[in-house]
Amino acid sequence: MLTRVKSAVASLMGGMMAGGSNGEHHSGSELPLKFPYSRPEFLGLSPDEIECSADHIARPILILKETKRLPWSTGYAEVINAGKSTLNEDQACCEVLVVKRRPAGSSTPNRTPLARRRSSLPNGEDVGLQENTDGSEDLTFHYWALFDGHAGSGAAVVAARLLHHHIALHLQEVTEILCTPNLLPPTCLGEEPISHHLTPTSQRALTRAASLRGAAGAPGSPSTPPTRFFTEKKVSHESLVVGAIENAFKDMDAQIEKEKAAYNVSGGCTALVVLYLLGKLYVGNAGDSRAIIIRAGQVIPMSTEFTPESERQRLQFLAYMQPHLLGNEFTHLEFPRRVQRKEVGKRMLYRDFTMSGWAYKTIEDDDLKFPLIYGEGKKARVLATIGVTRGLGDHNLKVHDSNIYIKPFLSCCPEVKVYPLAQHEHGADDVLVLGTDGLWDVLANQEVAEAVTSFLSNCDPDDQHRYTMAAQDLIMRARGVLKDRGWRISNDRLGSGDDISVYIIPLMYGNKQN
Amino acid sequence: MLTRVKSAVASLMGGMMAGGSNGEHHSGSELPLKFPYSRPEFLGLSPDEIECSADHIARPILILKETKRLPWSTGYAEVINAGKSTLNEDQACCEVLVVKRRPAGSSTPNRTPLARRRSSLPNGEDVGLQENTDGSEDLTFHYWALFDGHAGSGAAVVAARLLHHHIALHLQEVTEILCTPNLLPPTCLGEEPISHHLTPTSQRALTRAASLRGAAGAPGSPSTPPTRFFTEKKVSHESLVVGAIENAFKDMDAQIEKEKAAYNVSGGCTALVVLYLLGKLYVGNAGDSRAIIIRAGQVIPMSTEFTPESERQRLQFLAYMQPHLLGNEFTHLEFPRRVQRKEVGKRMLYRDFTMSGWAYKTIEDDDLKFPLIYGEGKKARVLATIGVTRGLGDHNLKVHDSNIYIKPFLSCCPEVKVYPLAQHEHGADDVLVLGTDGLWDVLANQEVAEAVTSFLSNCDPDDQHRYTMAAQDLIMRARGVLKDRGWRISNDRLGSGDDISVYIIPLMYGNKQN
Repeated sequence: MLTRVKSAVASLMGGMMAGGSNGEHHSGSELPLKFPYSRPEFLGLSPDEIECSADHIARPILILKETKRLPWSTGYAEVINAGKSTLNEDQACCEVLVVKRRPAGSSTPNRTPLARRRSSLPNGEDVGLQENTDGSEDLTFHYWALFDGHAGSGAAVVAARLLHHHIALHLQEVTEILCTPNLLPPTCLGEEPISHHLTPTSQRALTRAASLRGAAGAPGSPSTPPTRFFTEKKVSHESLVVGAIENAFKDMDAQIEKEKAAYNVSGGCTALVVLYLLGKLYVGNAGDSRAIIIRAGQVIPMSTEFTPESERQRLQFLAYMQPHLLGNEFTHLEFPRRVQRKEVGKRMLYRDFTMSGWAYKTIEDDDLKFPLIYGEGKKARVLATIGVTRGLGDHNLKVHDSNIYIKPFLSCCPEVKVYPLAQHEHGADDVLVLGTDGLWDVLANQEVAEAVTSFLSNCDPDDQHRYTMAAQDLIMRARGVLKDRGWRISNDRLGSGDDISVYIIPLMYGNKQN
Repeated sequence: MLTRVKSAVASLMGGMMAGGSNGEHHSGSELPLKFPYSRPEFLGLSPDEIECSADHIARPILILKETKRLPWSTGYAEVINAGKSTLNEDQACCEVLVVKRRPAGSSTPNRTPLARRRSSLPNGEDVGLQENTDGSEDLTFHYWALFDGHAGSGAAVVAARLLHHHIALHLQEVTEILCTPNLLPPTCLGEEPISHHLTPTSQRALTRAASLRGAAGAPGSPSTPPTRFFTEKKVSHESLVVGAIENAFKDMDAQIEKEKAAYNVSGGCTALVVLYLLGKLYVGNAGDSRAIIIRAGQVIPMSTEFTPESERQRLQFLAYMQPHLLGNEFTHLEFPRRVQRKEVGKRMLYRDFTMSGWAYKTIEDDDLKFPLIYGEGKKARVLATIGVTRGLGDHNLKVHDSNIYIKPFLSCCPEVKVYPLAQHEHGADDVLVLGTDGLWDVLANQEVAEAVTSFLSNCDPDDQHRYTMAAQDLIMRARGVLKDRGWRISNDRLGSGDDISVYIIPLMYGNKQN
């Protein structure tokens, strides 16, 4: 995340990489690392290869080796930044996980038996439900994730290792419900226990009866006691998965905060995750990475970015409500530029949390404070410090040379979008592209769609390595080549000097899942 | 706004209508009305006609008389509710206003010379700018507005009389800038005064030089002193109009609050306003009325509704941050239904302000409080009281039998959408439809589009009364006819028992404006 955390990053720039295990020595932290720095496990790199990958001059593009396979023949490629940080602060994770069903009748979640990783990953053979020897079913989900770190790689490394376990834990709480597609999630557990002896139809009837119980004046239940406001909202299976992802992000963030007492977890990171579960893709995003689906050459955006500009009104509202968070140094108002002392008394353009337009106000002394949100586009900052407003970590991040914490303004909550994969037919060139902001800073959605579609159409459809080759091609287009004036891409535009990581996930494997 | 304010409305149900001037006697208020109750001025109704229009049994549809004309041959029709309140709590206003340019050189806004109403309204002859005898130009704007009152008609009546003046006042502050389309709005007024002797080109150059002044390291200005973070955001003319509308709503709401000391202003109201100004339509909406454009039979939504469900996360966030607003009687969490005491300790579905999905939590005593947001669809309520979350007024509204104010949760800020009218060619059947929620509760956008398109295609294109006839037809379709089981519309569905007001604004007149 280039130039994201101005002052915080500066202290790390002199860091050295030692033996491929850990090159970070965060000033002031003598605590051990929970996980050593590395590149994504699925790349299967040796320590030597990891060290070589961090060449800021050559910027080699790392790709998934032909001998390595990710589920669905997913393609992956990455490149390190042009020197803004010693290490590649992007991280990635890809897994197929099986969530064991909780023993029937346990009313509180059993948090011990976590998801287990699938030992083999045969392409196109995964189904959502697995039958156990006792006849009960487990839940399988596919998981792809990108993390883009800033102010150190610690948070990104931890999140890449652990976030999917938090997701599995939350899914485990509802596995039994998700595995019974014809039964609406019960509002209260334990009240109408889910019976395996009921047919789906009788289960529906049971749930309906429960819903109507006490509904004052509901048709067909004239004799039920009138209880004020006693109606019941129906909750879908899909929204349970969304809730599980949302709460997993919160737990991951809380764990990072908690473990800072025992470990050195540097910086923060964005998180973009994709789950494939029971016929649907769930794309959860907290930060400025991006996911798009390319279907028959057309772009379907699957995420929105969370930046100081896109979240301005939320942040200004928070500051307006809790002005102490601004430490008497910032103003929640936005101005088109810094206000100067000589302008006090004049009328200047401004906007507050209620406005999307602009108006003039008379400048007062208070308006001389630095604006909470300042700058445009990639240079926009919250509290003059950070350019991304959602993600994990950053608990210790402060405004340079002050005691003002940034974290209260950051949200760890993802926005989750759902794509009903199994409802569509997909060809071999229909893909989901995930990329960190290094990709999207220099290539528009449409450029990416055209590049990928054109590249794949020139590949052998049966070559399972084609998606990795397409990912490599995308990174090449975004990084560009080193000329005398720096990294350049097509039309002599500036290439990205940021870390770039890209997944290309073919969607046709989803067709076979249901 | 049917069944919107449960308890608050109840006290008004017995109100009587007296002489067409005012039928409301808000319990406890001995203050005079600022404006008497009436129907929209442009309908030109006599006191007798106004009284007859309030027949809750016959529910006569009032239409614009053929002898009356609104700008652009706008069509209008309305009908009263089926008995939920004595008076029709919808109000409407339509004007063409001229904003006098402020005298050049005045650095503070001159608030005295308000907009004046255009004396004649020749169709298709209005232009945005009018030249004065001294060569300066005034700004003309068209204005259409709907207000849907609740808990009394006071706020709606006041807003219908005054909101456009607040808008004109705010536009007046920027008229000089808006009248100079080639000049970007200056960030600070008085610094680089707008000169009428400069050509647009030299004005642009002047503004650019001002923008770059002090920009550290900006290309072409190597000798400018390095000032940290000194870049300048460009603000468009369009966003000045948006800002003017936003701030006018805030001022209108503040005026209602202030004047409650001297006048009886009952209840609150939603506000949906449309401005046509310099080639663009601005649609500002605070509440649950709706605007759609129908162009070549296709629907273009021009507003979104603000309801407890659509604004759930904003309201929950506010309550989470300022729990004292809940008066220890409500919880900011949402549950699918009321929690019962016997369910404490069990796990129930919930969601908080961070979640769009649902998850299970263990029920605690605190969860027995009534949820801040409760109910579904038209029955959703904030604090068990109100079903709309943006609008004007409601300053005194409290939760029934408590001291908990609703107003902190309500926003008076509109969302403003812009449609570049002059950039499109429009036929005689291309229209903007504005309707209060009574219309949209029973007719979907597509149904309205089909009804209007079909109706207009059967009219004489040169009949200027056709848009009013189409509005009448829409109200007929939404109200239905009185059968033994109540008001019924097509397919034996329930008709709307709410007040319904509809504008149909032909768009082709905009073609001729620029």
